Amino acid sequence: MGKKSLKPTSAVLLTPVVLVTCQEEGKNPNIITLAWVGVANSDPPMISMAIRPERHSHGIIQKTGEFVANLPTVAILKEMDFCGVASGSKVDKFSETNLTPLPAEKLKAPLIKECPVNLECRVKQVIPLGSHDLFLGEVVAAHMDEEIRSEKGRMDMRKARLFAFCPGAMEYWSLGEEIGKYGFTKGKLD
Amino acid sequence: MGKKSLKPTSAVLLTPVVLVTCQEEGKNPNIITLAWVGVANSDPPMISMAIRPERHSHGIIQKTGEFVANLPTVAILKEMDFCGVASGSKVDKFSETNLTPLPAEKLKAPLIKECPVNLECRVKQVIPLGSHDLFLGEVVAAHMDEEIRSEKGRMDMRKARLFAFCPGAMEYWSLGEEIGKYGFTKGKLD
Repeated sequence: MGKKSLKPTSAVLLTPVVLVTCQEEGKNPNIITLAWVGVANSDPPMISMAIRPERHSHGIIQKTGEFVANLPTVAILKEMDFCGVASGSKVDKFSETNLTPLPAEKLKAPLIKECPVNLECRVKQVIPLGSHDLFLGEVVAAHMDEEIRSEKGRMDMRKARLFAFCPGAMEYWSLGEEIGKYGFTKGKLD
Repeated sequence: MGKKSLKPTSAVLLTPVVLVTCQEEGKNPNIITLAWVGVANSDPPMISMAIRPERHSHGIIQKTGEFVANLPTVAILKEMDFCGVASGSKVDKFSETNLTPLPAEKLKAPLIKECPVNLECRVKQVIPLGSHDLFLGEVVAAHMDEEIRSEKGRMDMRKARLFAFCPGAMEYWSLGEEIGKYGFTKGKLD
């Protein structure tokens, strides 16, 4: 068997899953589940996320210029899926899911307590690409649960219980085991 | 224990790992391992990838306006790590790793045979962000190994053996098990 040509698609990468929170002044905060998210820059720290213009959160984030990227664990898988399917124009997702909003340090949108990592972001650019607009956000404050910090100050993946989305299969997958550290070959193959 | 503020960082998302191939006319093809990669758009299909301007591949991709995103499996973990650490200005990565170049359908840069998914991309925008430039590439051709296609024409994640990078820990992790299908709640929590 060999390689088979597919209809061109971008939906085959492994992706993170992010619960993005946003809040319009005087209204309840909203949550949207996104997978079209990635690291865009290291210094300053920036992430990219693609949102369809017709999504309720799109208008809020465009108007307020801010959002929080919260990383969910397997413990809130159901709540995560719900926030990707239901619309904030119809339901109050915090009250429906019982997820807990916590005040952010620099933004008006809340953190989600049940997510062990929270990145407060200010929108720097919005790039229309077709089906989606790509938001580039600078991380202006970051938080991590003490429980998942390793002794070296890194993230302990054994405790973090993050998971990946596999759009090629439309499935969520847990992580298995560590298979190597970055740079383990030290640039040598023998 | 509670939440602890970190120095703002983007290096805590789960990310895919991609072996990006590129080729300047009349020269050997090169491979660079990237993790700052994400889905940027669905229609047309686009991906984003951040590359430091000082990397050898950056100039090649900027000049040729094309690259192939190849998804590695755990079987070539060592080769993947090597291609992230070594520089194509000093070594011929295809010959060092014994990875196999295959002709692409629409581009001059080759596919990597050992990667079960290959996305041929044309650069649409390059956005300088600081430490990295963000390349937005449109997927103009896509290929998948027949062995990893499921009966429904999707990707069989049990066979694909992809893995994730966890920059918060600087570790590569295999996938564990399927924990849910996209939309399994159907927008209802009870």
